[in-house]
Amino acid sequence: MTQATGPTDRPLILDSLWYGAHVATMQDGHFSVIEKAAIGVRNGRIVWLDEMSKLPAYEAQQEHDFAGGWVTPGLIDCHTHLVFGGNRAGEFEQRLNGVSYQEIAKQGGGIAASVKATRDASEATLLASAKRRLSSLMQDGVTTVEIKSGYGLSLQSELKMLRVAAQLEDQLPIHVKRTCLAAHAMPPEFDDKDAYVDYLCEEVLPTVASLGLADAVDAFCEGIAFSTEQVSRYFEKAKALGLPVKIHAEQLTSQGGTRMAASFQALSADHIEFIEEADVQAMAEAGTVAVLLPGAFFTLKETQKPPIDWLRLYQVPMAIATDANPGTSPALSLRLMMNMACTLFALTPEEALAGATIHAAQALGMAETHGSLVVGKAADFVCWDVESPGELCYWLGGQLLKQRIQQGKLTS
Amino acid sequence: MTQATGPTDRPLILDSLWYGAHVATMQDGHFSVIEKAAIGVRNGRIVWLDEMSKLPAYEAQQEHDFAGGWVTPGLIDCHTHLVFGGNRAGEFEQRLNGVSYQEIAKQGGGIAASVKATRDASEATLLASAKRRLSSLMQDGVTTVEIKSGYGLSLQSELKMLRVAAQLEDQLPIHVKRTCLAAHAMPPEFDDKDAYVDYLCEEVLPTVASLGLADAVDAFCEGIAFSTEQVSRYFEKAKALGLPVKIHAEQLTSQGGTRMAASFQALSADHIEFIEEADVQAMAEAGTVAVLLPGAFFTLKETQKPPIDWLRLYQVPMAIATDANPGTSPALSLRLMMNMACTLFALTPEEALAGATIHAAQALGMAETHGSLVVGKAADFVCWDVESPGELCYWLGGQLLKQRIQQGKLTS
Ligand SMILES: [Zn+2]
Ligand SMILES: [Zn+2]
Repeated sequence: MTQATGPTDRPLILDSLWYGAHVATMQDGHFSVIEKAAIGVRNGRIVWLDEMSKLPAYEAQQEHDFAGGWVTPGLIDCHTHLVFGGNRAGEFEQRLNGVSYQEIAKQGGGIAASVKATRDASEATLLASAKRRLSSLMQDGVTTVEIKSGYGLSLQSELKMLRVAAQLEDQLPIHVKRTCLAAHAMPPEFDDKDAYVDYLCEEVLPTVASLGLADAVDAFCEGIAFSTEQVSRYFEKAKALGLPVKIHAEQLTSQGGTRMAASFQALSADHIEFIEEADVQAMAEAGTVAVLLPGAFFTLKETQKPPIDWLRLYQVPMAIATDANPGTSPALSLRLMMNMACTLFALTPEEALAGATIHAAQALGMAETHGSLVVGKAADFVCWDVESPGELCYWLGGQLLKQRIQQGKLTS
Repeated sequence: MTQATGPTDRPLILDSLWYGAHVATMQDGHFSVIEKAAIGVRNGRIVWLDEMSKLPAYEAQQEHDFAGGWVTPGLIDCHTHLVFGGNRAGEFEQRLNGVSYQEIAKQGGGIAASVKATRDASEATLLASAKRRLSSLMQDGVTTVEIKSGYGLSLQSELKMLRVAAQLEDQLPIHVKRTCLAAHAMPPEFDDKDAYVDYLCEEVLPTVASLGLADAVDAFCEGIAFSTEQVSRYFEKAKALGLPVKIHAEQLTSQGGTRMAASFQALSADHIEFIEEADVQAMAEAGTVAVLLPGAFFTLKETQKPPIDWLRLYQVPMAIATDANPGTSPALSLRLMMNMACTLFALTPEEALAGATIHAAQALGMAETHGSLVVGKAADFVCWDVESPGELCYWLGGQLLKQRIQQGKLTS
C-alpha cells in the first residue's frame, strides 16, 4: 500500500498532506492499520501513504494535522432510493395507531403514494428534499452514494429522477452513481406485468442508455413485483445496451432471482435474506456482491437473517447500505446500518466497515478506484473522533465525524 | 396554554419572539398542535404562546423567524450513564469475533472495566469525554439530561462522577439532573452485598446529600446486582435524607423491585421488561413513571418487551431514554430511541415524543417547569426541519435539528 521511494534528489510533489491520525486502509477488506500515518494527495488521488516517519522529502501546497482520531476510506452507500416526492411518515404513524397495511393500500398508500408524489413533484422540489437527506448521509461520512430511480415508472418520470441524481453530484461534494430501477413496481396505467416489461425494454432502457443517465440497471424480483423470467428479459436488454445489472431479490421469499442475476454477472444481489447455499455459490462464481440492508430488516421486523456463514464460507463480499427509502427503511445514517449489521446479523466491526467501503465500491463496479486507501486510488477519506475503528460500529447515533475529504478536498 | 390578554394599552414585553413554525406543545402528553405559532419569551420562560395571528401589541428585543418546520419541547433524556472512563468498543468487537461473555469477564471486562477506567480517570478526562457525548445528544435536540453516577462505587469516585456531571451543566447550555447510583454493582473491595449497602447508607448517601450533589438516588435491583431488601434499605436512607428515588428493575427477571420502589413513591421504574400487572397498578397508584430503554433492549437482543398495553390501560406515563452507557446501550441519539420505541415496542409517534418530553420531565420530578410548551414553563424548545412531528420518530438517524433554544437562548 506504500509507494517505494528510492534515494533521489527530487522531492515528492503534493497538493496536500494529511497527518496526525491512524489509518485503517481497508485494503482487501481488512483494517490494515497504519499508525501515525501520512497521506499525500495530488490531483485528487493518493500518491503517498505510509507511516509519517517514513515520509521522504516533499513539497505540499497545504498541510492538515488531524490532531488525533482514525482515518478510514470515505463511506460508500451502495443502495439508496434517496430521490422521492413526499415522505411516508404519515403511514408510519397510521400503522402504529393500528391501521392495517390493507387499509393503507386501499387509501392509495405504500409505494403507490411515493410514485404519485414523485411524479407530481417538480425537479427542483425533488432536488431540494434529496439534498437535505444526502447532507445527512454526508455528515455521517459518506463520500459516494448510489441513487436509484423507481418511483417514476414511466419514461419521463424515471428520467426526471435520474437527472435529479445527476444534479446532486453537481451541487454537492459527493460522487453519485445512478441506477435505473424502472422495474421496481407496476405503474397504475399498466395491468399486465409483461406488457410493462416490454415497455421498459423497448422504450425506457434504450433512452436511459442513450442519454448516459444510468451506471447500472436494477429490478425488484419478488412475488409482489416481477418474476425471474420478467427480470431476466429486462436484464438481457440492459446487457445488450452495455449496462451492468443489480437485483433486489430473496427479501421476502426465495424465487431464484439471485441465481438468475448471477448468470448475468450482476454487480450485486441485495437484501437476500432467503437465499440458499446454491445461490451463494452462484454469487461467488459470478463475483456478485451481497448487499445487506439491516435498516429494512429492522423496520419491517423481519426474522429471517441473510446467511452470513455461507457468505463467509464462499467468500462472497458483503456490503452494507442504508436502502434509504420512504417506506421500508427511512435511514439517513450508514454508520447506524453498520451498527445494525453487527447487532442484528453478527457481522464483526471489521466486516461492517469493509461493507461500507471496499465491498460497497465493488457492488458499484468501482473497487479499482475507490473504497480503500491505497496509492493510486481516489483521495476520499474521513477522519473520525474515535480511539479505534471498532467504535464506528459500537455507538448508536452520535456525531463522530471530525473531517471529511472528498477528491482531496476538505468538505467539512 | 395561552395567556388571555384583555384590551389594554400596555404592550407585551418580551426578551425574544419566535415564530414561523408550527408547534407541538405536548401538553398533557398530546401533540396539541398550534399552527403558525408564536412564542414569546421573557427571563428564560414562555410568557405568550398561541397562533401568531392572535399576538397582541408587543415589544421584543429579538425576533426569530424559523421559516418553516415544527417546534417541540426540548428533548429530555431522563436516564443516562454519560460520565465514564474509557469505552467498551473493544469488548463489542471481541464478542462479535466469538469471545464469550465469560471470557471477557475473566479478562476484567464488563462493568468492572468501566469501574476501573472511571476510578483511574482524572476529573478533566471524564469531563472531556462526557462533553463529547453530551454534544451529540444536544445536536439531536436534548435540552435536559439526567446523568447517573455508578461507575465509582466508592465515596470519592462517586463524588467525582457527580461533580463532573455538575461541571457539564456549567460548561454547556443544557440542564443536568444528577442521580446517585452508588448501588449499581459491587466494587472489587467488597465481598458482601449487605456490607456494601451498609457503607452506602452510612457514608456515601449522607455525604452526597450534604454536598447537594444529587437530585435523586437510584439502584440496580436484579439477581446479578442488589436484592429488593437491600435496595429497600438504601431507599429508606435516601428518603430520610430527603432525596427521591428511582430504580433499574425487572430488566432480566421479575424480582418485585418495581413494586417495592412504588412503595417509596419512586419517580420512575426503568427497563421493566418483566413487570407484571400488579406492578403496573402499583406504579399507577404511586405516580411512578415507566422509563423504557429500547437501546439496551436492542443491543442486548432482548425478546421480552415491556407490557405497553398494561401501561396504557393503567395510564402509567411512559418515558423513553437512551440509557447511554458503555456496555449495554452506547446510544447517543434520543431521537433514535424514539424510533426504536415505535419499531420495537409499537409506541405511537405521539407517545414516543411525549416519552422524550413531558413524561421524561415527570420521571425527573420537573414536569411543573419543563417538558411541555405552556405559558410559565421554561423556554426550552427545538425547531426541526420536518413537515410533521411524526417524522421525528420515522427517520433512522439523520440531521433534523434546525435550531435549539435553551432557557430562551439560541444555542445552535
Ligand atoms: Zn432497495
Ligand atoms: Zn441504566
